[in-house]
Amino acid sequence: MKLDSLIRTAPSWMSGADDADGIVLSCRARLARNLANYPFATRITRPQQQQVIDEVLAAAKSSRSMSTATYFGMSVLDGDERRVLVERHLISPTLADEKGERGVLFNQDESLSVMINEEDHLRLQAISPGTRGREAFTAICALDDELLAAIDCAHDSRLGFLTACPTNTGTGLRLSVLIHLPALVLTEDMERVLQGLGQLSFTVRGMYGEGSNAAGNLFQISNQATLGASEESILEELIRITEQLVGFEREAQDSLRQEARGQVEDKVWRAFGLLSQARILTSQEFMNLLSAVRLGCTLGLVTGVPSSFLNHLMIATQPSHLRADAGRGLTPAERDLRRAEIVRNKLSEVTNS
Amino acid sequence: MKLDSLIRTAPSWMSGADDADGIVLSCRARLARNLANYPFATRITRPQQQQVIDEVLAAAKSSRSMSTATYFGMSVLDGDERRVLVERHLISPTLADEKGERGVLFNQDESLSVMINEEDHLRLQAISPGTRGREAFTAICALDDELLAAIDCAHDSRLGFLTACPTNTGTGLRLSVLIHLPALVLTEDMERVLQGLGQLSFTVRGMYGEGSNAAGNLFQISNQATLGASEESILEELIRITEQLVGFEREAQDSLRQEARGQVEDKVWRAFGLLSQARILTSQEFMNLLSAVRLGCTLGLVTGVPSSFLNHLMIATQPSHLRADAGRGLTPAERDLRRAEIVRNKLSEVTNS
Repeated sequence: MKLDSLIRTAPSWMSGADDADGIVLSCRARLARNLANYPFATRITRPQQQQVIDEVLAAAKSSRSMSTATYFGMSVLDGDERRVLVERHLISPTLADEKGERGVLFNQDESLSVMINEEDHLRLQAISPGTRGREAFTAICALDDELLAAIDCAHDSRLGFLTACPTNTGTGLRLSVLIHLPALVLTEDMERVLQGLGQLSFTVRGMYGEGSNAAGNLFQISNQATLGASEESILEELIRITEQLVGFEREAQDSLRQEARGQVEDKVWRAFGLLSQARILTSQEFMNLLSAVRLGCTLGLVTGVPSSFLNHLMIATQPSHLRADAGRGLTPAERDLRRAEIVRNKLSEVTNS
Repeated sequence: MKLDSLIRTAPSWMSGADDADGIVLSCRARLARNLANYPFATRITRPQQQQVIDEVLAAAKSSRSMSTATYFGMSVLDGDERRVLVERHLISPTLADEKGERGVLFNQDESLSVMINEEDHLRLQAISPGTRGREAFTAICALDDELLAAIDCAHDSRLGFLTACPTNTGTGLRLSVLIHLPALVLTEDMERVLQGLGQLSFTVRGMYGEGSNAAGNLFQISNQATLGASEESILEELIRITEQLVGFEREAQDSLRQEARGQVEDKVWRAFGLLSQARILTSQEFMNLLSAVRLGCTLGLVTGVPSSFLNHLMIATQPSHLRADAGRGLTPAERDLRRAEIVRNKLSEVTNS
């Protein structure tokens, strides 16, 4: 497999998560950009798509951030390989599945990536571990500046950056945080929190974006509006909301600690016991058990299990990573066996070290 | 507590179970006897009860099997202490709860015991590990001979030994095996097996006799008739039935191994994981998990966990043993915490050794 070097290791940006509290897993910044001299995606021809790719790769080559980045055209990857990139958050399902010339460019630690010919000609992404949202924002702005120096982008002096879908027009910026809120779910306060977020025009989704549900108590919070607000103000607002959510989660954790300490410890250690010993693990059960262990880490009950380890486990046990690791197609039942095996082995490595 | 030396150790007869296959846990033989010169239990006075005790203790003193046995009069033990003896199968709930002068005599390894002034003046019990039913039978016959040499027992030349309840008259012998049949329960064949046993006039009960249910897939099989059959023929019949049940269980285990190997391994190791890590364990869940681990031992999946260890755990985690170990009364919730703690600690000792 062309992605062999990827599948067995964690994206190295993840290792930065271990100094965080385990509540905020990561922050992502995304910019939508289109080249001025080509039709938007719905109208573009294949030769024009190829020209877009060529222009972008040339610009990247001469940039500081992406001069040594890896490029994969989707046409050289089979469906499984594309899914591996989706599971690593390097590309969207749309880029993996659509027709036409398209591809992805990403740097060594997978913290920066550029999808070419997705819904927009360019989708720039920066990701950073823990609560370092400002870092991702700074990185994406730098990459944007570097590419814009070499590429002429579709821009309107009144509207800002033009995009295929008007919801992205303006800054083209979408910021999101992936946040683990198990105590708010356990105390049944999450519904109330979600309502509050809706009123602030921030959306809440599961880990894999629109339409995915919040497996393992992981929520992705992102801004809705890209127009009428500066990039800085979107960032400040998201940071503020994230801090608030972390505060709510901590309160909920405190009340669990006070009112149901025994039950929470039991829940955490049962999950640890099952992850350590189960021979069959569905993806859903795995995510729920992982959530309980992660809560145990945040509460200080479980020690010696780094947050980055749990994050990597989440990636390594997804269907296409399992299939790639096995080197062959797997039935759902075989996946559940391999998932359990990988979790068991990796967990015994980390707990025995 | 007067039973301090007991509660922290396993009855030492149990250690003999480790050479067995883990399906048959133990065999018990019981004889009902009454002294010829005293009224039966329903009519006896307290002074007469005391005389019975004196006569039996004198006879035991001069016997080979029980000359160094320990005697506890029920009046010197509080309710909790009596329950400890019930949980160790040394006395019946009846002996623990009834009024009057009564007590129990038992030897060092707890394999031989004599209840005095229970439903009959004497209830002799011998217990042996694994499938060694013949051993228990031989031991009880020897003890019976030794005591009868010094005590005049109520006997009728036509009916045999006379007892308070006619269901025990004749040989006064009840033989039973405690047998673990998880695969027959899993494959839903147990109902059919139980019906067959009923036709053979053997009864099936839970581990703690009449009225108790089969927690943890443990069944106690015993003869109904004590009259009209010789001791030897009752023994042979029970051995034959036990072998048959073991055969059925093995067949059921084989079919599980062939048709649901993955699921069974998963069930076994999940149980192991939960016993190793849970912080709260109810008695019922504990018995179910222990059953799965025991199945894992029988199937050779789990190694290094002796059958005697599991049997001891079953005793050590019962309410009165927990209370005695704690040295104070425990609420049900506190019991579930201590049960989990004991299981966890002991399991980590045995798996790390």
